[in-house]
Amino acid sequence: MKNLRIALAQINTTVGDLDGNAAKVLDFARRARAAGAHLVAFPEMALTGYPPEDLLLKEHFVANNIKALRRIARAVKGIAAVVGFVDRGQDGSLYNAAAIISDGKVQSVCRKAALPNYSVFDEKRYFTSGGPGAVFSCAGVRVGVTICEDIWVDGGPYLAQASNGAGLLINISSSPYETGKRVERFKLLRKRCRQTGTHIAYVNLVGGQDELVFDGASMVVAPSGKLVAAASQFSEQLLVCDIPGEGVKAPPLGEIEEIYGALVLGTRDYVRKNGFRRVVIGLSGGIDSALVAAIACDAVGCANVVGISMPTRFNAKATQADARTLAERLGIEFHEIPVEHVFQSYLETLAPCFQGQPFGLAEENLQARVRGNVLMAFSNKFGWLVLTTGNKSEMATGYCTLYGDMSGGYAVIKDILKTRVYELCAYVNRKAGSELIPASIFTRAPSAELRANQKDQDSLPPYPVLDELLVEYVEHHGAFQGMARRHGEALVRKVVALVDKSEYKRRQAPPGVKISRRAFGKDWRLPLTNHYKTC
Amino acid sequence: MKNLRIALAQINTTVGDLDGNAAKVLDFARRARAAGAHLVAFPEMALTGYPPEDLLLKEHFVANNIKALRRIARAVKGIAAVVGFVDRGQDGSLYNAAAIISDGKVQSVCRKAALPNYSVFDEKRYFTSGGPGAVFSCAGVRVGVTICEDIWVDGGPYLAQASNGAGLLINISSSPYETGKRVERFKLLRKRCRQTGTHIAYVNLVGGQDELVFDGASMVVAPSGKLVAAASQFSEQLLVCDIPGEGVKAPPLGEIEEIYGALVLGTRDYVRKNGFRRVVIGLSGGIDSALVAAIACDAVGCANVVGISMPTRFNAKATQADARTLAERLGIEFHEIPVEHVFQSYLETLAPCFQGQPFGLAEENLQARVRGNVLMAFSNKFGWLVLTTGNKSEMATGYCTLYGDMSGGYAVIKDILKTRVYELCAYVNRKAGSELIPASIFTRAPSAELRANQKDQDSLPPYPVLDELLVEYVEHHGAFQGMARRHGEALVRKVVALVDKSEYKRRQAPPGVKISRRAFGKDWRLPLTNHYKTC
Repeated sequence: MKNLRIALAQINTTVGDLDGNAAKVLDFARRARAAGAHLVAFPEMALTGYPPEDLLLKEHFVANNIKALRRIARAVKGIAAVVGFVDRGQDGSLYNAAAIISDGKVQSVCRKAALPNYSVFDEKRYFTSGGPGAVFSCAGVRVGVTICEDIWVDGGPYLAQASNGAGLLINISSSPYETGKRVERFKLLRKRCRQTGTHIAYVNLVGGQDELVFDGASMVVAPSGKLVAAASQFSEQLLVCDIPGEGVKAPPLGEIEEIYGALVLGTRDYVRKNGFRRVVIGLSGGIDSALVAAIACDAVGCANVVGISMPTRFNAKATQADARTLAERLGIEFHEIPVEHVFQSYLETLAPCFQGQPFGLAEENLQARVRGNVLMAFSNKFGWLVLTTGNKSEMATGYCTLYGDMSGGYAVIKDILKTRVYELCAYVNRKAGSELIPASIFTRAPSAELRANQKDQDSLPPYPVLDELLVEYVEHHGAFQGMARRHGEALVRKVVALVDKSEYKRRQAPPGVKISRRAFGKDWRLPLTNHYKTC
Repeated sequence: MKNLRIALAQINTTVGDLDGNAAKVLDFARRARAAGAHLVAFPEMALTGYPPEDLLLKEHFVANNIKALRRIARAVKGIAAVVGFVDRGQDGSLYNAAAIISDGKVQSVCRKAALPNYSVFDEKRYFTSGGPGAVFSCAGVRVGVTICEDIWVDGGPYLAQASNGAGLLINISSSPYETGKRVERFKLLRKRCRQTGTHIAYVNLVGGQDELVFDGASMVVAPSGKLVAAASQFSEQLLVCDIPGEGVKAPPLGEIEEIYGALVLGTRDYVRKNGFRRVVIGLSGGIDSALVAAIACDAVGCANVVGISMPTRFNAKATQADARTLAERLGIEFHEIPVEHVFQSYLETLAPCFQGQPFGLAEENLQARVRGNVLMAFSNKFGWLVLTTGNKSEMATGYCTLYGDMSGGYAVIKDILKTRVYELCAYVNRKAGSELIPASIFTRAPSAELRANQKDQDSLPPYPVLDELLVEYVEHHGAFQGMARRHGEALVRKVVALVDKSEYKRRQAPPGVKISRRAFGKDWRLPLTNHYKTC
């Protein structure tokens, strides 16, 4: 096989930004050419961003994406390019496609054959399945192109491409992050390399899009199954590699580091791509808001993070002090706005109707809702985005207040179980080399502080037990008997009931970064009206 | 052809209620037998309810639905039955299926071939496409069975069934309501009858499930295309018909009557199936909350509706009086809870941080949010469901407050354009034969009353103009040029920008009854982060 230099353009596109994405493609094509590459490949649907969802139902959107592709084809010079876009057949059918561009023209188009329609994917809502993909020649080397899912299915188009003499298979992907996904992708590619006897170059999207984070981690794997080049996760990169040969290899991240990176990028891109500059967070002095504040600092810079503490009669001096200390150590703007007076005015206003009723959930929720309103008032007044601080254990069990602590534009840690919140906070301090998050925040028993002497553990099982069960029920749709065997019938009944009856809260929750196998977002479509009893 | 008596069991199932749905199937099978029917047919997925969404990913859910089917097969006596359920293949694949039951056994199973994966449907997420369907004999007549979409596609399995001697085609459906859908279904069935030369018996689900309302309107159409039996919309019915012969024919509803029926049933079933008895509504004295209150009375009974008026400094005496009059005429419980004091306490609390800032959106939204909190406090205290009162024109343009007037469990009129709100209110009075909704509510210019002398028309185009444009942009994904030709460039730019930038509000909105071609719900999946510019 001749020597071919390829460049994988791991770019951060924005959904719907046809002009911006096209400009980025041209910029990276120029850089690839300057690096001496014969061929540059871009992620799946690089032109439209991924996933454009129902924008695809707008005819003008698809027409404009094709126009943008033609402009790119004319402008790319001195290098071949594989560019993801949306193709339209003569009958109007849409295809998730890759254009093979060279010499000022679209030379051929490859249409995705395997359309994922599970988990967060809805590709059969929009696309028709394509053919066996394209094989083209570049600098004397036969190159086959597949799109994302095509390489995952056994017996996919890569087999025919290899049989047809391809020495290099390029897979263009927009594969969202999940814990451990990078390793899973490498194992798959290694297997396909050995099956086909070819090099595989895998280019993946990077960036945040609503609840999804695309982590990049583009790579080149040799026919032996050896990793010969690897891009970093969570940042743009042009990965250049000679085939045969080797390129740079970014060192792999540890699990917690990787999750933290996903949270930072997802938050940064949601803020930035939605036109916000600053964010505001309710700082309770607890571990969840501490983590969100730390992530926000890494995402948008400490100067753009505002923390607000909003005590009522139930907030301990120690937690308020912790909130203040945290803000000082992070170096963020901080305000203390006591809301007891507002809370009291609600109680007085409601007193005629609530006469004789004991203090209860209504009064607890009111405090959370006053805080939500104050944060939203800051958002409305100054144009800041409210980041919510609820974790997955709370979202699962409904241990959160709708229109209260759930109020906000982005729910940074909604897919992070409470036990992992602690691990991530420990990582924040390790990374900083100092106690950025005060030790007392780690050691104090978690409390919503909405009534006297309240502790989370009064209402919920201990978090290590709860979280293990939640993984089983939420992420694996566990059946009663198996769960009961491991956790006991009573506990399972209690937790399953909490999860099931909180669906209406989750339905109205803001989006947040998906990091798990199954997050409360596009891959969790449970009916609200639902009489099914798992137990 | 011999004479066959069939019964179409237009039943109201509940998603996930395997035991309850099975009991209802048995009850209607007994009633059909008592009516002398040879055959009774139930809607698509009658056992599981429709759509069960991700419940289908739980193995135990599917296993339990199959167990329920076996129990039914053993219990149904002296009549053949076609029962919708979820079938599982040996490889674990799922099928949307119909069991043909007689003599205590499942005699055969028909699996749906055409799986809708557009609009509100996600059937390819769960199901594998089935075969050509089943033809069986009943009382000497050959009967073919298809499932919902199967009859809609040209060249569907009904052709082969007719060629194989079927004299009667049964289609079991769970077809959600949309304005005009009943007529559309009849036209389709008439066409299929003429194509195949057979009778077609169409049995449809009835009932509300989250945002969908299934309207029933089951029918039998003769080979000539003549309608020979027709069930009512929006209520359970056992429609019995001799073939050949005629059955009862419910008179068709007018368009407004039909939409009102959908809103009432959708609301009633959401309330009832989610275990609520009473509902609470913020009554502003405006037309939207008047309509919602009237619908609520028809849905759950006046005794179970509570109206709350929550004036601040900006609410005119006249609108407050209208709220009170409306409540009196409807005969509902009514409370006036002035919230000026709470609003004032927020302003004082925020004053140190908002110094020098003019009164603006933050202060307007605060009033709406105080009201939302008060309604939620009643919900939390007494277990009432909050019904929100926003219409589709507001939901489209973002002329509503997140965590304010958008707070609640069910958004009854979220798919009703403002111009149609007036038509429906006029219908309410016509139906009552009196001015249930006071005339002054119709004639006063709409206002949110969140600042002095505010009118909707200060911020929005006149509603008749706005609504026409919204139909074009929202329901038909209109392109700029066509819309601009009809409405002018400036207006289109303004309205499109309002719609596009309000996506984050809609994402956190409660569900409400879908009545249009495209509602803000499962058939509206626009990204939040979205740089696409239609204009």
